[in-house]
Amino acid sequence: MGTMPERVVTACVLIIGNEILSGRTQDTNLNHIANVVGESGVRVREARVIPDTEDAIVGAVNEVRAKYDYVFTTGGIGPTHDDITADCIAKAFGVPLVIDETIAERIRGRPSPPEVMASRMRMARIPEGAELVENATGGPQGFSIGNVYVMAGIPSVMRAMISTVRLEGGAVVQSRSVTAYLGESQVATGLEGIQDRYADVDIGSYPFMDADGYGTTLVIRGTDAGTLDRVLDEIKQLIVDAGETPRNVVAE
Amino acid sequence: MGTMPERVVTACVLIIGNEILSGRTQDTNLNHIANVVGESGVRVREARVIPDTEDAIVGAVNEVRAKYDYVFTTGGIGPTHDDITADCIAKAFGVPLVIDETIAERIRGRPSPPEVMASRMRMARIPEGAELVENATGGPQGFSIGNVYVMAGIPSVMRAMISTVRLEGGAVVQSRSVTAYLGESQVATGLEGIQDRYADVDIGSYPFMDADGYGTTLVIRGTDAGTLDRVLDEIKQLIVDAGETPRNVVAE
Repeated sequence: MGTMPERVVTACVLIIGNEILSGRTQDTNLNHIANVVGESGVRVREARVIPDTEDAIVGAVNEVRAKYDYVFTTGGIGPTHDDITADCIAKAFGVPLVIDETIAERIRGRPSPPEVMASRMRMARIPEGAELVENATGGPQGFSIGNVYVMAGIPSVMRAMISTVRLEGGAVVQSRSVTAYLGESQVATGLEGIQDRYADVDIGSYPFMDADGYGTTLVIRGTDAGTLDRVLDEIKQLIVDAGETPRNVVAE
Repeated sequence: MGTMPERVVTACVLIIGNEILSGRTQDTNLNHIANVVGESGVRVREARVIPDTEDAIVGAVNEVRAKYDYVFTTGGIGPTHDDITADCIAKAFGVPLVIDETIAERIRGRPSPPEVMASRMRMARIPEGAELVENATGGPQGFSIGNVYVMAGIPSVMRAMISTVRLEGGAVVQSRSVTAYLGESQVATGLEGIQDRYADVDIGSYPFMDADGYGTTLVIRGTDAGTLDRVLDEIKQLIVDAGETPRNVVAE
């Protein structure tokens, strides 16, 4: 009806770290980043978990920074030999690593033996042209260069960092969800019909099993609240028609 | 020293699902798969989270199945309109989707109205030439084709599926880890020296903050137990030399 096509702003998350790939550590950073940037109207369209190797990091950064509006990386910015993210980002952008004097002064302000200081000073190196990301925790320094935001892997430090980042997003995606204790097949045809009639929303069906039996949560995502509410009503009717009760209706 | 270079068997995990990218759902499948296949000597070298769209799935599957020994996918094999994984895998391999009679019979064995049956029968479609993956839960059918294993997104169902898959792995990676309440910088130089002398192991430093202060867990990964134990001893000495106590030594 003459509405402007809305601008969709996309992002990719790169989780850098052998500890995630080995199964030692359960990543939670992707989930947090997706939720936080979503509130600014930025949609995570892809995420990759990659090892702490130069080829993997440089290759992935250059591929995804060309493909998405924003790239968020976590991991590899500490002072040890396996912290190679800053080096790799500089290489990906074809710029040298330089000592940032603001960080260097802060590091020098806390005295330590020469060998320890040398390791700590690794964290003062950022790619030439990068801007600092604020970090209230006093941990390793994050930075941004181009459309790439480089953050720590420790969840608490990453969360402090991303809370300070300001993004230029598009329309914010909202959701409606409703749960029913029935098999997905019982509503599959009806759902497909609704999805066909509402191309602007994205309807997902997420089955589960819990103590009360098996069921599915139906999630509607889109940017127009009125449309979401109409689709929700149709899906609730579908559930009633299948002989079940719509439960746990959530609007977010 | 005349040792044969060991065969390294690699894998990529593809997590298919908008609900992970939107931040609605916290993925746990990658972590479980990494641990299970690791026990068979298969190393996850990359993971991607991709949306439920044909372009994304077909593109990622064809890219990573050429690059890694194994590919494991989760998500998108149920009966609803957003379950397009089987279609996409068939397209990636350039084969038609066919009805598997074993699954079809099982589905027909539980009567349901024609419309519901039609949706359930979607789950009997597998790419031509694919083999079934056993699924004790009775949920949607997994399958494998070439080096790609296609599994459900519901964690309990995925876990049942992967427990039945037999993989041809290489040497199993073991680990040793030790924790110390000190800053990474205090051991960074020493760690780098140890890593340089033991090229066959992978030493990672994972800082954390907890109620007792900040510390780091040092993790040594490799396939030779004797080497791991020697490296562990050197790292424990490094911690002692830095004036701290090695804690929580774990061999896995």
